[in-house]
Amino acid sequence: MSERMPDASNGQTALAIICGGGTLPFALADAAIRRGRRVVLFALRGWADPQRVAAYPHHWTWMGQFGRFMRIASAEGCRDVAFIGSVARPSLRQIRPDWHVLRLMPQIVQLFRGGDDHLQSGIGRLFEQHGFRLLGPKDIAPELVMPLGPIGALAPGERDRADIARGLALLNATSPFDIGQAVVVADNHVLAVEGPEGTDQALARVAELRRNGRIQTATGAGVLVKAAKVGQDHRIDLPVIGPSTIDAAAAAGLAGVAVVAGTTIVAEPERIATAADRARIFVVGVDAGGTGQ
Amino acid sequence: MSERMPDASNGQTALAIICGGGTLPFALADAAIRRGRRVVLFALRGWADPQRVAAYPHHWTWMGQFGRFMRIASAEGCRDVAFIGSVARPSLRQIRPDWHVLRLMPQIVQLFRGGDDHLQSGIGRLFEQHGFRLLGPKDIAPELVMPLGPIGALAPGERDRADIARGLALLNATSPFDIGQAVVVADNHVLAVEGPEGTDQALARVAELRRNGRIQTATGAGVLVKAAKVGQDHRIDLPVIGPSTIDAAAAAGLAGVAVVAGTTIVAEPERIATAADRARIFVVGVDAGGTGQ
Repeated sequence: MSERMPDASNGQTALAIICGGGTLPFALADAAIRRGRRVVLFALRGWADPQRVAAYPHHWTWMGQFGRFMRIASAEGCRDVAFIGSVARPSLRQIRPDWHVLRLMPQIVQLFRGGDDHLQSGIGRLFEQHGFRLLGPKDIAPELVMPLGPIGALAPGERDRADIARGLALLNATSPFDIGQAVVVADNHVLAVEGPEGTDQALARVAELRRNGRIQTATGAGVLVKAAKVGQDHRIDLPVIGPSTIDAAAAAGLAGVAVVAGTTIVAEPERIATAADRARIFVVGVDAGGTGQ
Repeated sequence: MSERMPDASNGQTALAIICGGGTLPFALADAAIRRGRRVVLFALRGWADPQRVAAYPHHWTWMGQFGRFMRIASAEGCRDVAFIGSVARPSLRQIRPDWHVLRLMPQIVQLFRGGDDHLQSGIGRLFEQHGFRLLGPKDIAPELVMPLGPIGALAPGERDRADIARGLALLNATSPFDIGQAVVVADNHVLAVEGPEGTDQALARVAELRRNGRIQTATGAGVLVKAAKVGQDHRIDLPVIGPSTIDAAAAAGLAGVAVVAGTTIVAEPERIATAADRARIFVVGVDAGGTGQ
């Protein structure tokens, strides 16, 4: 959403990275450090990987300790904040509110009604209202964002491009309903619409439908199509693909994976290219209209 | 689609019922027989229940034996045809084409590209082009079609009605993409969009998300919403609910089930009411705009 591209390499303040699960928080931290910036991790208990967190300046925190975050982040000289890594939509029970959050409770309860976008844009507003600047991965490390065109050796064919266009159109239609960011389309037939279960589970479903003979398209047809939702806060939750996405797409017998360039995070692009070439599937960045480069 | 309501009770010709799986074909046959009509079952091998088929005049057939069907149906004096019961989208391999079908093969291959609606309307045309009249359950036995308002003791509350409206709007948005006929919405949050896996599997997914703590809404919130797709051929494939749907919705911790009145088949309404009351969930027929009675 934001058009700002602050020159993070010369930022005088430290960067607070609120870390969920997976390897992305560390890729982002490394990218910021390479640019000469000091980072402080705020590792979410239950999500962030303790072994990897230990290698960086860090503070462990429960989700919901917003007052504590603000106090420590200010003391650490952080004004910019990034929020990255996997966090399943938390239940109210999983959150340990501190006194500051309790005061904000009516606002927060409202956030938890409705879909993820609603929750995210509310979180963004909370930070900004308290004087922090929320940055997205694209602001900090553009190299983590999917480029236009294929990664790896293979490119989509004509039938794949038709499936990609249909998938993007479907994601566009479901976007106002604030649901998943991924669909699987094979030979013009929709095989899965991702819900809260996530992309890997949706792909596992396609693999099972194929094993059960419930899908008539041959192995080697079909595309996983991922796109950010319309209006999604690109600073908080962009779609992500990693090597495991490629493995799951291959296990589902698909021809490839298409994601929207510029608004999809690519964890470990070299490993993705290797995994795609080994599985003989394509991975392509497309524009929102569905064309490759 | 059809507005015809032929007076089936006085039809002079026999009714050919092409039977898939489940109990619906027999409910339809019984309803036609009660109206004084002779029925001949064309039982699809691999789908129809042999024990129950045996109680009616019948011929076993493979899917795809269209020439054979036409020959026998004509000899039996059938001009009206109904196609009912569960048939997972067949693969081309599961079909045993006879000579007549081989001649129609280019047309049939086209049918298998695209979604279910495309396939269905093509099947309807095939029958009509060969002089048969395709009837829907509503034409033959209106008592098998869901009425407006609740079945059973419970009715949706205000939050449920909002979830129902959101579910219907989502189904309307996905309808052009020819995918599933059901979604699960809880407290304004979309928990599942049905794909080729079917309603019971989509509900099982919601039950699992709840077990894993991935859903924050309390048990007792959420509605399974089913609707026929826009442009769906109501003679071939209407959404169906049966006692197993109620059990699966209850296992998913939902508040109830909402289906569009007039275009949903209700197998065994008394058993559904009993199952719903036992599980303490509502089952309601709504108009396409989402209001109950």
